[in-house]
Amino acid sequence: VALLFERVAVAGVGLIGGSLALAAREKGLIGEVVGFGRGAANLETARRRGIADRTTSDPAAIGPVDLLVLAVPVGTTESVARAILPHLAPGTVVSDVGSVKGLIVEQLEALLPTDRPFVGAHPIAGSERSGAEVADASLFRGARCVLTPTPKTQTAALERIEALWRGVGARIERMSPADHDRALAWTSHLVHALSFVLADSVAASDPRNLRFAGPSLREATRVAGSSPELWQDIFQANSRAVGDAIDRFADRLEELRQAIGRGDANAMRALLESGRAARLALESEA
Amino acid sequence: VALLFERVAVAGVGLIGGSLALAAREKGLIGEVVGFGRGAANLETARRRGIADRTTSDPAAIGPVDLLVLAVPVGTTESVARAILPHLAPGTVVSDVGSVKGLIVEQLEALLPTDRPFVGAHPIAGSERSGAEVADASLFRGARCVLTPTPKTQTAALERIEALWRGVGARIERMSPADHDRALAWTSHLVHALSFVLADSVAASDPRNLRFAGPSLREATRVAGSSPELWQDIFQANSRAVGDAIDRFADRLEELRQAIGRGDANAMRALLESGRAARLALESEA
Repeated sequence: VALLFERVAVAGVGLIGGSLALAAREKGLIGEVVGFGRGAANLETARRRGIADRTTSDPAAIGPVDLLVLAVPVGTTESVARAILPHLAPGTVVSDVGSVKGLIVEQLEALLPTDRPFVGAHPIAGSERSGAEVADASLFRGARCVLTPTPKTQTAALERIEALWRGVGARIERMSPADHDRALAWTSHLVHALSFVLADSVAASDPRNLRFAGPSLREATRVAGSSPELWQDIFQANSRAVGDAIDRFADRLEELRQAIGRGDANAMRALLESGRAARLALESEA
Repeated sequence: VALLFERVAVAGVGLIGGSLALAAREKGLIGEVVGFGRGAANLETARRRGIADRTTSDPAAIGPVDLLVLAVPVGTTESVARAILPHLAPGTVVSDVGSVKGLIVEQLEALLPTDRPFVGAHPIAGSERSGAEVADASLFRGARCVLTPTPKTQTAALERIEALWRGVGARIERMSPADHDRALAWTSHLVHALSFVLADSVAASDPRNLRFAGPSLREATRVAGSSPELWQDIFQANSRAVGDAIDRFADRLEELRQAIGRGDANAMRALLESGRAARLALESEA
């Protein structure tokens, strides 16, 4: 079987970039992998774990590749692409894994010449942990991966990227960048905002309260252990949709709060029943 | 070794009541167990799983016991106690497991004569599942159990209840009912309110969004699968503290939302860093 990509550069060999390289190598989809990044210790981990054959912090030393995967934080994706671009041979496909697509797709389509075709991608997987040490070849098995083609997207490049993600076990969805960003504002970005604010609020109420954390608070604040740098980037890059989701969530929370305040059992019950029904619908999603 | 309680009635043989009976029997802390409840199928499950030696739906058929554990929803605790009281021999210790203590302690202390001493208790454990089928003898191992004595509490009864919970693996805390309710409003009741509202809001945004649920949304909405009846009771019984926690959470969320709206990276970053620090502090709590 021919490889999908003979040589691949992964910029940012963390949880997502590292897991993709591990999984794609394990499935025989890609050949040589060059890891690009800043942290010497993380690059060493990537080599030791077989994520990359070699690593570098110098864009000029990446060498010729057929695919560049940008797996760095949303806020640095464009600048990393800009640094690598002069060393990228014509024909190289460029893709990313960012949690926000509108801004990144716009930036990358403006930056890259047509003979370095860009395909926006977002695998919906991950955890609050980061770095090559926690990369996991099974991370994308059964996960959804959203591809966000635009009228500028080249079909051949799109199909190769789709085959790559399908090959590592992901279920593909195609959406516009804007639709992706609105959906993810609800299903991920809002959730992270609530988690950070919840952890902060509980500690601010009285730090001793943390000792009474049961399973519900522990779960609800798990993703508040994520990188503030990474999430500040995401909130900024998707500020309109995230702000809208927060506003509408806050309105509904205020409705519940008012019902509690006036002891309105029917209103409370209706809202809780509606929330429970939504949760059951979510569980029935594979 | 002498038993702590020779005969125990458990009113409500669900997840908490059933798990306590299973664990206390396994540890040799209690003798005969009578399960009291309404649902015939659940009572049968309780007998089959060895939670109770016998079960009844008739308060008059409970027979003499040394301990009555009220493990029914917060809103029905008083009425169940009232129904059983005429059949309760002097000397019987009465305790509960409710998530709200102020109202229950007040109701039960007013209801019970001094020769049926009451001890308020709240084991901080559980899940969104319910019923005798999911009772688990290991549920309380390492969990905190808050006891809420008042000036009316009888020391001998308090010490026996404390020994029971310690015996099934719980770590004991003593607090006033009001302090308990304020702490739990933050660490549990607010979390459940957010979870119900989040599930509801995401579904209301567009039901198709549920298919993009990643691990963060799945975790954050798990407890929205809980019983609306049970949680409506808890919100009503602890309305002041829950309302206050929601208000202060909402203020902080609005701060983050404003920072996102005006693109204020420093304000965003400070709030996210503070939330992450709180999460790390929570993780370091055993």
